[in-house]
Amino acid sequence: MAIDDAALNALFLEARTIWEYADTPVTDTDLAAIYDLVKLGPTSANCSPARFVYVRSPEAKEKLKPALSAGNLDKTMAAPVTVIVAQDPLFYQHLPTLFPHADAKSWFSGNPDLAEETAFRNSTLQGGYFIMAARALGFDCGPMSGFDKAKVDRAFFAQNGWKSNFLINLGHSKQAQAAFPRLPRHKFEDVTILA
Amino acid sequence: MAIDDAALNALFLEARTIWEYADTPVTDTDLAAIYDLVKLGPTSANCSPARFVYVRSPEAKEKLKPALSAGNLDKTMAAPVTVIVAQDPLFYQHLPTLFPHADAKSWFSGNPDLAEETAFRNSTLQGGYFIMAARALGFDCGPMSGFDKAKVDRAFFAQNGWKSNFLINLGHSKQAQAAFPRLPRHKFEDVTILA
Repeated sequence: MAIDDAALNALFLEARTIWEYADTPVTDTDLAAIYDLVKLGPTSANCSPARFVYVRSPEAKEKLKPALSAGNLDKTMAAPVTVIVAQDPLFYQHLPTLFPHADAKSWFSGNPDLAEETAFRNSTLQGGYFIMAARALGFDCGPMSGFDKAKVDRAFFAQNGWKSNFLINLGHSKQAQAAFPRLPRHKFEDVTILA
Repeated sequence: MAIDDAALNALFLEARTIWEYADTPVTDTDLAAIYDLVKLGPTSANCSPARFVYVRSPEAKEKLKPALSAGNLDKTMAAPVTVIVAQDPLFYQHLPTLFPHADAKSWFSGNPDLAEETAFRNSTLQGGYFIMAARALGFDCGPMSGFDKAKVDRAFFAQNGWKSNFLINLGHSKQAQAAFPRLPRHKFEDVTILA
């Protein structure tokens, strides 16, 4: 059964990337509620490689600032939270718990290329689920990949070895209406092969 | 405003990866309806690199077969549709239309590494939106990355140069209940830095 129109609107039809947020704070409880949906989305062999840094304090925003591209700077510094969607390159060490019915750890521990590709693909999927989960709970998102990943990794992940993937500004939109009309999209027939 | 419980259940709380499908066909109209939600999900500079092959005919399933891993073989051959989520490495040629207010094409045309990373990240995001959009419209998904990408690319993309990313079996679940309990997930505090 399809979800109702209000839900389709919130997730897809009326959802827009948002850059200007109200002052309403995003609490730890909010972040945990979003994650409790995100974690349920499917990943390959349940590998769940995504890790999340929630940048809210002025100190942490200052740490992030030198890594931001000019076009993303002001809106990111002003957002209630900026989420660093990252991945743990050693995600496979948790597979004996996450995927107990096969020796999935061994698929990755001797194959760094496969591990890296799997971490990137699946942390990105989980980042996509994050956008959808945040919208499902009434938040707005501004995802970005315009930043210096090496700088973020040095500033935030020198100890734990995580790797940054992309950023998501998160909050509640300041305006009821988006600032500009939606950009065009590819037509179904232009991106489709029926085989 | 949050979406209602029925929608949260359909997308996240009660949604499960499904491998056994009813015989109900998935029509061209169904596929276009899913895509018309998928295309609205955000991508970097609206780059929209994902391409979709809908493998339904016995001939196309036979073409896919040699690329499938043993564990994914039978369930994929039996699924009403197998979607090849792919990316167009030359996605940036469409940016003058998709992102008309900047010369975004030039960001990628001289930078093949950035183009490849952007295509992979954003086609994966669009694949994640596909899973959510399909569930939103009442379909069930079985996503997989256990297959030989080079074989799929040779079999399906020798002409157009697209690159396969991952596969999604698609249909309506045969059973009302999932075959086994959900696997464990990481706890919020184990994958989180509050900064």
